[in-house]
This record gives sequence, structure tokens and C-alpha cells, in this order.
Amino acid sequence: MNHPKLKLTYWDLPGGRGEPARLAMTIGGIQFEDHRISFASWPEIRSSAPFHACPFLEVDGYTIAQSNAIVRYVGKLAELYPEDPWQAALCDEALDAVEDMWVKLGATMGLKDEALKTAREALVENAYKHYLTVLAKRLADAGGEYFADKRLTIADLQVMVMCRALSSGTLDHISKGLVQEVAPSLHDHMKRVLNTPAISDYYSRLMAAK
Amino acid sequence: MNHPKLKLTYWDLPGGRGEPARLAMTIGGIQFEDHRISFASWPEIRSSAPFHACPFLEVDGYTIAQSNAIVRYVGKLAELYPEDPWQAALCDEALDAVEDMWVKLGATMGLKDEALKTAREALVENAYKHYLTVLAKRLADAGGEYFADKRLTIADLQVMVMCRALSSGTLDHISKGLVQEVAPSLHDHMKRVLNTPAISDYYSRLMAAK
Repeated sequence: MNHPKLKLTYWDLPGGRGEPARLAMTIGGIQFEDHRISFASWPEIRSSAPFHACPFLEVDGYTIAQSNAIVRYVGKLAELYPEDPWQAALCDEALDAVEDMWVKLGATMGLKDEALKTAREALVENAYKHYLTVLAKRLADAGGEYFADKRLTIADLQVMVMCRALSSGTLDHISKGLVQEVAPSLHDHMKRVLNTPAISDYYSRLMAAK
Repeated sequence: MNHPKLKLTYWDLPGGRGEPARLAMTIGGIQFEDHRISFASWPEIRSSAPFHACPFLEVDGYTIAQSNAIVRYVGKLAELYPEDPWQAALCDEALDAVEDMWVKLGATMGLKDEALKTAREALVENAYKHYLTVLAKRLADAGGEYFADKRLTIADLQVMVMCRALSSGTLDHISKGLVQEVAPSLHDHMKRVLNTPAISDYYSRLMAAK
């Protein structure tokens, strides 16, 4: 299949909203320009970014934004998205739930000291514990290994990237043991997805390039 | 085609995040239980709602949440979602952009007086004007009539519902002339979508039932 010319612009980070699309294209062997930008370059780039948001994807020169639209599109090219509407709905629900989690995390960014502590503790108690619990239930209902279609889909990539961020210890006032404590099956899922050969190779190459 | 048993739970409002799914099922002639709830009943319902969110959809007894996952699923049943991956990406980008707009509006809910005024004015200036401009450009790029696939899709329903809310005059400090002023093509699109027979019939029946 001939794929269009793809260029993904996103932060030079090994995670975040743009990472699942990078992983999907890597797993699917789909050539793309991996345009990694620094935070410092954002003021210059922002005005040309649709919805002033990052990531964005150029497809044969036309640029779209919205991380879930992007990952669903490249997920279809990479055959990592269910064809069955109900399995696709389960995949989509997980994508959107994780997007909620990024939005809620984003609302605490920029806060400092006590305000950050209070907001992050509330985020964990009032939202993240519940989200992780529901996602763990979804995983169990779907058979325990993958979120949809009994195979790796973009939902697994999206949830893994979020759980990896939460477990990194780099988010102030979010215990890096949170996922393991609240939803051990998601922690196992994260490790399993990270051990997928195409993904472990990708992160090895990324580490080696630093 | 035999559809599963569907029950959509959402506020008893003629708009909002759950409305595009109602419209899609109505247009597609898909039977569903239209479970309309009051804000007063929410504390009782909340604990059983996945991600503590509304709308949610029961499909043969299994409940999923996330409004865009729901509208994409019922949109496929109703044949209001593109099969072509790129057209689907354009549809999805519009869905997610409107979801952003709901999230940003939600962040101003509960504010009062001067704080509400300041937040809503910033919302319009810093986000909504840009979002409406990008959406209007997308509509023009897609041919001017529909957002994707050169036919009515769930993207048109979603954008119409948002533009209708913004143009209702019921959102404090958001001028009901905003859409018409910033993106007249979106205002025309809204009127055109509302004049789709299945949609105008739906709102006539809803008004008559009040």
C-alpha cells in the first residue's frame, strides 16, 4: 500500500500526546518524518499550528491537529485500529479517557508550591484513581491482555504512554507507585507493551541517540 | 442490519456533548432508548457512570462513556462516518476540536460575576475565535458544505451543536453573534444542518413535547 507523505511535529520527548502516533507508525513500518521540536521553538511554530496545538501531522502537505485524530489515522495505516465498530468503540473510549487525563494534568501545569501540591493531590484522589480503576476494568473485560480486538491497538499505546508518565516519578506530587498500587494490571500491561519488540527497539534507539 | 440494544443517558437538554449521538441515531433511523436525566438526579447516577461522565451508552447492557467514542460508534451504525481513513481523520479532527471547546467552556463553569466575565472574554479572544476560524477553513477546504466525505457526517452534527450553543445567547459573556461574525460560513452550515429534514423534524417533536 502506498502511504501519503507524513510529517509529525511534536516535542522532543519520549512520551506525551504525540508519542502513540510515533509508536504506531514505527510498529507499522510506516515511513514518516519525525519532526521533534523544543519548547523554545514553540512561540515561532505556534501561529502555524492548527488550534495552536501540538502534535500536528502533515499528510501530503495538508496539516491536521488533534492527537487522537492523528493516532487513529496513522493507526489505520499501521493496522493497529479495529475494523469492527464495537471493538473500535472500546479502543476509542480508552483513547478519549487518556486524553481526559492529559487535560486534567494540563490544568495543574504552571501551578507552584502549595497550589501545585493541592491540585495534584486532588487530581489523583478525585480523578486518576477512578480513571485507572475503570481502565483496569476495561482491560479485564476485554480479556486482560489488550484493550480491544484481542490484539495490540492504538488504545494499548495510548494507555501505556500515560501509565509510563505517571510511573516515571517526574510528575511532582504524583507517586510513581500510583499505577502499580491502584491498577496493577495496567502496570503489567505497560511492561508487556513496552516489551513488544518494535517498541523496545524504538526506545533503545532513542536512548542510544541521546 | 440488526443493531444492538442501545440506551443513551444524557441531560434533558437539546444540545451538549450527548446531542450529536441522539441526532445521529435519529437520522439513521436507529432505535434507542433516549434516557434523559435531570441535573438533580446526577449525584445518584454519577457513581455508576464510567469516568463519572455523561453521556454514557449502554450497548446490549455494557456501558461505555466518552462522547466522541459514543458518537463515532453510533455514527458508524447510522452510516454517518467516513470509511476512507483520511476523510475519517478530517471528521475526527473536527470532533476533537469541538470537544476541546467544551472542555474550555467547562473550565469557566461555576465562576461568578467578574471572574466569569474575565474568563469568558479570554475564552473567546484566546481560543474560540481561533477555533472557529480554523473550523471555517476546514469547511472551505472540504468543499464548503460538509466537513468530510462531501456528505453529512457526525462532524457536521458536532460542529452544529457547538455553534448552536454559542449562538443561543444563553452563555453569559459570549455574544450570540460570535459565530456569525467570526465564521459566517459556520453559521450558514449550522442553519443548513438544522434544516436537514430528519433534524428539523426532531427539534419540532422535541419542542412539541415540552
